Amino acid sequence: MTYCVAIALDDGLVFASDSRTNAGVDQVSTYSKMHTFEVEGQRVFVVLSAGNLATTQAVVHRLQRDMEDGVEESLASVERMAEAADYLGRVNREETEKHSEALSKSGMKAEATLIIGGQIGEDPPAIYMVYPQGNYITTSQQTRFLQIGESKYGKPILDRIIEAGTALGDAARCALVSIDSTIRSNLTVGPPIEVMVYARDTLTFDHYLCLEADDEYLRSLTQAWDANIKKAFTDLPRFDWESAHGRKRRGTRVSRGSARTAPGKTAPGKTKKPRR
Amino acid sequence: MTYCVAIALDDGLVFASDSRTNAGVDQVSTYSKMHTFEVEGQRVFVVLSAGNLATTQAVVHRLQRDMEDGVEESLASVERMAEAADYLGRVNREETEKHSEALSKSGMKAEATLIIGGQIGEDPPAIYMVYPQGNYITTSQQTRFLQIGESKYGKPILDRIIEAGTALGDAARCALVSIDSTIRSNLTVGPPIEVMVYARDTLTFDHYLCLEADDEYLRSLTQAWDANIKKAFTDLPRFDWESAHGRKRRGTRVSRGSARTAPGKTAPGKTKKPRR
Repeated sequence: MTYCVAIALDDGLVFASDSRTNAGVDQVSTYSKMHTFEVEGQRVFVVLSAGNLATTQAVVHRLQRDMEDGVEESLASVERMAEAADYLGRVNREETEKHSEALSKSGMKAEATLIIGGQIGEDPPAIYMVYPQGNYITTSQQTRFLQIGESKYGKPILDRIIEAGTALGDAARCALVSIDSTIRSNLTVGPPIEVMVYARDTLTFDHYLCLEADDEYLRSLTQAWDANIKKAFTDLPRFDWESAHGRKRRGTRVSRGSARTAPGKTAPGKTKKPRR
Repeated sequence: MTYCVAIALDDGLVFASDSRTNAGVDQVSTYSKMHTFEVEGQRVFVVLSAGNLATTQAVVHRLQRDMEDGVEESLASVERMAEAADYLGRVNREETEKHSEALSKSGMKAEATLIIGGQIGEDPPAIYMVYPQGNYITTSQQTRFLQIGESKYGKPILDRIIEAGTALGDAARCALVSIDSTIRSNLTVGPPIEVMVYARDTLTFDHYLCLEADDEYLRSLTQAWDANIKKAFTDLPRFDWESAHGRKRRGTRVSRGSARTAPGKTAPGKTKKPRR
């Protein structure tokens, strides 16, 4: 599996990805899922990839070759980010179709889902998610991030923190926290974690990080997050049935609510609403 | 969809569930997914249900009827929690099979997944997850909780907080936070949220809550959690490229790392590792 996230902010773009690929649980490898393309000072792109590894490698190879060969439509020629997404969609669909019939006979899928983001000249920076069928969506004012792969574990923290005005550093940190939460809860997502920060209108990549599991900053971040979350949890308001000390010891009952009437209850008469 | 969680602790058991059911996004209803069964002072059970609503209703009805009719195997007769899980597995499989052929012709599934927990006399309290096929798993010393339904959004906080020694109040609060995070990130999970707390060896239900969205405690809890999480995030260590004020203003660059060499780069020579 995979987990990648891209965030579009007033200040620019943030991309983050894990590096674990697996075919089943016993064939686990490390591959970068972050691919960058650049015409210096003129245009920058980041492509994040999830899905069939053969397909995503073929797609990235095509993007690279089309650019180098100077073919009519490539990341060097498109004039808007939406056109880049459309082009990537076509390449993705074509590469997927090559092997999908043979793969489906073996019960496998050739499908890949990608995110492309960046900026072309004076066109505003943008991010797009490109589906296996070649269609694509972008962000809205309310929805500032796109995720591919194992996206659910890491979504709540993005939902809480990310908005259009979030600073690039905060968004990059939030992406790291989101990926770290996913890694803790799901074995199929793993380090190194890559992060790319693009500051609007600079037309060059601002900051790139490739953080191994033992990276000093990543370790300090995840340790701080774990401690801060535990404190955030400890500071929550208590139920009124908890003792003043906030801990019920085993065997001691502070208060006792009666059970609610249950469908299968055999003893009648206990119908009063239980206390909290 | 649905989200239910059960937690087994040294001190007892905690159950929590949302109440939203849906067939597609336009047929959304409210149904309790928490069902209790009790022989007063002798045995208590909580059943949490996810999956096809017709199947889960039929299963709950069977559990209730078998108990009332005094049939040979019922929640009133089983002697261990593992036997209760085995019996529930059989009932689930039988009720699923009744309609699965007809449903599969319409492209639908009759499957239901359930959690059963409780205590029978002096047998230790336990929780089991029962699959549509009738097999079942329980917890381990390391894995103290079981989830059914839309479980991924709410798993990271359980992974961080829950361990065998967690107090019942803390576990109930953690379950609420887990469900609240899920509700925020996924429309198909919704209030009211039900919580049941069972203190070990009491053989009666300890505390039951049914929290509507506007419940005072739930509101204070979710507001405090949102504020605490944001503070936990703000207090994280910063990247060394962030300014002393911790905010990079748009257009001002504090430091500048060069882009890493990308597969599609057209300009050669920029191969140095970018700074963080």
